[in-house]
This record gives sequence, C-alpha cells and structure tokens, in this order.
Amino acid sequence: MSHLNIAILGFGTVGKGVHYSIKSHQARLEQVLGKSVNVVAILVKNLEKHEQSREDGVLLTTNFEEILNIGELDVIVDAIVGCEPGHTYLTQALEKGIHVVTANKEMFAHHGEELLALAKKNDVTVGFEATVAGGVPVIQTLRQLLQVNRVRKVEGILNGTSNFILSSMRKDGHTFEKTLRAAQENGYAEADPSNDIEGYDAYYKGVVLSQLIFGEKPEEQSTIRKGITDITADYVESADELGLRFRHIVTLFKGQKGVQCKVEPVLISTEHPFYQVDGVQNAVSIETDLVGNVQLQGPGAGMYPTASAILEDIIQISRPVNSEPAYVVYQEEAANSSKWVLFNKNKKLEVPYDIKVLARLSDRAAVVETEEVERILLENPLLAYFELKGNYQHRVEKVNV
Amino acid sequence: MSHLNIAILGFGTVGKGVHYSIKSHQARLEQVLGKSVNVVAILVKNLEKHEQSREDGVLLTTNFEEILNIGELDVIVDAIVGCEPGHTYLTQALEKGIHVVTANKEMFAHHGEELLALAKKNDVTVGFEATVAGGVPVIQTLRQLLQVNRVRKVEGILNGTSNFILSSMRKDGHTFEKTLRAAQENGYAEADPSNDIEGYDAYYKGVVLSQLIFGEKPEEQSTIRKGITDITADYVESADELGLRFRHIVTLFKGQKGVQCKVEPVLISTEHPFYQVDGVQNAVSIETDLVGNVQLQGPGAGMYPTASAILEDIIQISRPVNSEPAYVVYQEEAANSSKWVLFNKNKKLEVPYDIKVLARLSDRAAVVETEEVERILLENPLLAYFELKGNYQHRVEKVNV
Repeated sequence: MSHLNIAILGFGTVGKGVHYSIKSHQARLEQVLGKSVNVVAILVKNLEKHEQSREDGVLLTTNFEEILNIGELDVIVDAIVGCEPGHTYLTQALEKGIHVVTANKEMFAHHGEELLALAKKNDVTVGFEATVAGGVPVIQTLRQLLQVNRVRKVEGILNGTSNFILSSMRKDGHTFEKTLRAAQENGYAEADPSNDIEGYDAYYKGVVLSQLIFGEKPEEQSTIRKGITDITADYVESADELGLRFRHIVTLFKGQKGVQCKVEPVLISTEHPFYQVDGVQNAVSIETDLVGNVQLQGPGAGMYPTASAILEDIIQISRPVNSEPAYVVYQEEAANSSKWVLFNKNKKLEVPYDIKVLARLSDRAAVVETEEVERILLENPLLAYFELKGNYQHRVEKVNV
Repeated sequence: MSHLNIAILGFGTVGKGVHYSIKSHQARLEQVLGKSVNVVAILVKNLEKHEQSREDGVLLTTNFEEILNIGELDVIVDAIVGCEPGHTYLTQALEKGIHVVTANKEMFAHHGEELLALAKKNDVTVGFEATVAGGVPVIQTLRQLLQVNRVRKVEGILNGTSNFILSSMRKDGHTFEKTLRAAQENGYAEADPSNDIEGYDAYYKGVVLSQLIFGEKPEEQSTIRKGITDITADYVESADELGLRFRHIVTLFKGQKGVQCKVEPVLISTEHPFYQVDGVQNAVSIETDLVGNVQLQGPGAGMYPTASAILEDIIQISRPVNSEPAYVVYQEEAANSSKWVLFNKNKKLEVPYDIKVLARLSDRAAVVETEEVERILLENPLLAYFELKGNYQHRVEKVNV
C-alpha cells in the first residue's frame, strides 16, 4: 500500500488533534484514500516541552528547513497562528510542490489569494476548511452549492468566544466584564481577548468567505467591524424580555461598490434561525438564487472538530472540487432600509418624529425602519440601536393582547 | 465544446424546474463542467397537455423506449413519483450505461441498494441528493463528513407538509382538520395527504439516509412510524404555553438489533436547534464522533431547490465522492431512557408513583424519565405523552420564580 506523508506545523490543540485523529481514524483513512496516512514530522517551538511526544519515525524539530528537505513529503498541515512564519513556510512548501492544509484564518485572510494562485501554478492544492467555523463543513458546502447556485448574501456567527459571552450574559445576567473574566477562567476566552471580542477573528473569516464566494476581498472603506464590548447587561436583559437575543454577526454581500462586510452585534428574534445558536456554536446562513436559504450550524472550534475539517481537506487533495466565484449583486436599497431596535438607556423612548416606527415593543423599545440610524444616535446620546434580524410580529401581537 | 445530453422523465414541478434551471444556468454549468448541458428529451404522460413545451431539438415523447434509443444520452433525470415505472426505467438506463439522477424517494427507498449495485457494475453513477430535504445538501454533506467521521445518530424534520401543519396549528390555534384543509387549499398539502401526515414520506427519506450512513435499511420490526393526525389544538396550545413546540421527527441510529428508525411527533424546547424550524423548512441534525453535532436547514421542497439538488448531482457525475458506511453503534440504553412530557388531557396531572419526575412544568404537564412510557399510557387513557428533545431547565426556572 502506498503512503501519504504529512508534516504538522505547530503542536498545540489543533496540531495534537490532527495527530491523534490520524491515529484513531487510520483504518478509515486507508479505506477512503486507498493509502495509509503517516505523520512523518512535527514542527515545534520548544523541543523540551514536547520531548514526551517524541515517537519513532516522527521527526520532531524546531527547524522548518529540515521538514522541507524530507524527501517524500505530500502534505503540510499549518496549525500555527498569526501571519508569520506561516505565510513564509506555506509559500516555500507550495513552491516545492507540497500540498498545504491550513487552519490559520488570519494568515489566510491576508495571503489566501496569493497562496491559491501559487498552488495552482505548482499543480497542488490548498485546503482551508478549518479556517471558518471549525468542524462545520462551510467551505465544502459553499463550493458544492456554488457549482450551481449564485450567492446573494451570507450571514454568520463565526466567533465562538463572543457568542459564548453574549449567551452567558443572557443566562447569568452578569456584566460584560464579569462574563469575560469567567470565560477566561474557563478557557473559553484568551488572556488577550481582543481578537475575538473586537471582531477581528470574525472579520478574517469573513474575508476568507468573501474570496471564495465573490473572488475578491471586502471593500475596505465601507467595512464595519464592531466588537461586543459595548453590550451592557441592561441591553441584554431588556432584549431578552422582548424575546430578542444579541448575536455577533458577520454579514457579507456584493453591492455596487464591491463586497460589503459588516461585523457587529445585532438583535435576533425567535423566528430567526440564529435565535437558538448559543454558546461556542457557529452558524452560517447562505442565501442563494436557486436553493433559497440554507443554514449550517455546529461547533466552531475545538480539538476534534478542527481536526475533522483538516482531515477532510487532506482527503480532498486527491479529488478537489474547484468552484469559481458565483454571486448575484445584492440590492443595497433593501439592505440599507433595514429594521432596527431603538432602546432608550434609562427612560421612556421617544422616537424622533422623522423616523418610521414599525412597532412599539415596550416603553423603552421600538422597532423602526430608517436609513439614517447613525444620525439618530449622534443627536440622542441616550439612545442605543441594534439591527434586528427576524420577524417581530409575533412579539407585537403578545404586547397588544 | 463537448456536450452532456440529458433526458428528463416527468414534466411536473420537478421536471420543469430542472429544465428551466439548466437553461438559466447554462453559462455556469459550462464553466464548471467544461461542457454544455443539453436537455435532449422529455418523457411525459400526455403529449397534448405539454404541446406548448415542445422545442426544436427536444424529443417530447410518451414512450421511454424512444429515449433509451437516443444514441448519445449521458444522464437520465427521474422526476416521476412512485415505485413504478421509475424503477424499471432506471434499471434499463443503468444497464445501458447511462448515469441516473433521481428525486424519487419512495422508489429509491425500495430499490436504492439494487440500483447502486447495478450502477457500480456498469461503471456509472446514481445521484440521489434530491430524495432527501430538497435543496439542502444533506447527502453530499453526509458523504463529506463520512469520509472522516463516524455517525452516531441522525435526527431530521424531513417532511415539509407535516411541519407546515404543526407550525400553522401553533400560529393560528386551529384544529388539525381545519389546518390541513387550509394547507390543501394553499397547495402545501396534497388532496390525499396521507403520504405526508402519516409519516410515509419521512420514513422513505429515513431509509435513504440509513442506507447511506449504515449501509443497510432500518430493522423493520422495531420501526415506529407515527403520523401527526392525533395532535390536537389543545396539545399544541398547552405545549406552546410551556415554551415547547411539536415537530415531526425522524430518528435514526444503529443499535445492537440493527438500524432503529422512528418517525413520530416529539416536543422540542427553546434550546434545541429544531425549535425555530417552522413552515415547510427541513432540518437535519447529524451527531458524529469527531465533529460532534452538525445541523443543516433549508427548503425541503419546491421547484428550484429540488432542481438545484439535481443539477449538483449532474455535476458530481464527473467526480463522484464515494464514501462507505461509517457509524458508531449507539447506546440504546441512553436512547431508551429518554425524557418525556406527560400531559393530562383535561385535568391536573397525577404522575404514576413508579415514574421519575424530572420537573413539573404546569398543573397538567411534567417532564418524566422512564423506559416504559407505553405502559403508562395503556393504564391511563387520559394521559398523552411526547418525547422531549432539548433542555427544559430554562422553563423550569421560570415556573419556580
């Protein structure tokens, strides 16, 4: 039987998950690929720390050159974080005709286009299923749908940490700061959480999806990247009383001015598919011209979900699905005249006379429709506003009864 | 440029959807396949009825022999219903070395295994993405996941009509009979609705999934197929007051005695992913060993969603993903000791002394845990019981406050 030789760069949670899963699923991989899959090298930062992971026949090294010089290396799995040295390593690998599979979203958001072109030139593949939504097969499903469908719009909960914090605030009634600290203590948020709670991580994933669907990066000038740090316990509680939940959402569509990408907290009503996506779950909603709306949901991170995505990419190397970008330009008018929930921070809400009120939700909250929500806020420092997704009629009936 | 020649059997909603979509997406299909896709023949029952659909270069016929005798036919799309004549036609097609794509779940549930074996023998493929959940790419996603993951359990809302009826009953407060009549008048249910509301259609889809995941049909003796006709307006309203919703669910897992398939109405709590799957939507929840739980949701039927699934299969012909069955035997003990909601039909609920009460939901309802729910009902004709999926703690806290 022939072999597929793999090197893993980085031996943290993701790298270990890949190593263990290849071992535990060896029989399956042989059955599907007709080859045995061997991990032949692991790149680590600190040899001493990983001494106990040393195995016969597996090169444990801090020197990438040694890995590159292995005679029969088929695939390099990138399980390190940050743009460098990942970008440099993968460039060298592709130039040597080695397939690449990456879980590194920041690097891939910045250099994906370039790496994919380089791979094409060298007749190898780049797998990046693990860069978006962990084990949820978003990339593969999009590729599949894109063969026939054109995408109108994509919405996603793509960062497990911020979704976990927003869900916990609702369940426990604690402040943002207290919830964040608890999340850090329990390993759901990092010591420096800004990458997650400020929306950078979600934005990187949006960029990866944008390149896949639209063939280009989001237009930078109109990109919105808002974090969840302004969401107070009071907002969360008030929203919950109204049957609404905060979610940190990435929205992507192609308008007249290029790809529009927004990362921001929005309110979701009970009838919206993201309403029950709690905790570290990720979810993606894809709007297409033929199928209509398709949603996927599942674990966005974790050792084995991410390993599963990487293993799927490894299998795909022998039969890649290449789909070209396919989209329908989205009607921005429709996108701009969206529904918003206006909150007054501490007293009865008075809606400015030139704003169309669609429904009163309570003394302090109303659903409004306007294109000028920014202006309202500037003029009324006591008002907070959040975009609303999903129907609110159900709630209004309850209020009126 | 070379061609891919297609014949469509049946020219109702599905057949027309395929024909129109091939026309509207011709450029895309050429780009992806590197071939133009031509519909060269359509099989109809009644020539006169379809006279206006006659086009130059497209054979319109009532005689399948004529289609089989077309010199260069690549694919036959089966868009007719019922076991016959579909089964016979597709058998003949495969024996002639013609690829087959089917949307016919009843036929495929009965003859799928045989047709797949015949296709393999003749070195052609059978696509069946459209047999389960319409445009939602359930089959392809399962194939993808199955390359690496092993399935523990699958749950699905696989019949749009029964889900539409249950959703409408909740929203409108009407009886089952009145809701069914309205659904029939609006085209959401057929004149003879038994295939949908008695669970046959959902069961056929369960059989198709069972063969794909477990490599065998469900074990017949233990199969449960309950319809939704016993769900009264009172049950729906009482459940809604408790934050619970009825869904008609297919559950599939492999136990010690073979594949267990249940089709029955169950109660879903707010924290479960199926809670907001309303109307004609379909949804599937897949529990696997590596990824954990992945859910898909989208339109389960309709002209263009189904056409999209069929077109995806046509594209797949040139690069099929073959995954062998892969599963983990499910712990039946865990499955049997499920949670149930007990309702008293018209007065205070008294729970039999030998039943473990997990929570009181109201005067008339409680969550219980037992393996012997059938026996309880036999002894207490006033009691109704429904399996509960999702967490109920959220609700209990509200009751106790």
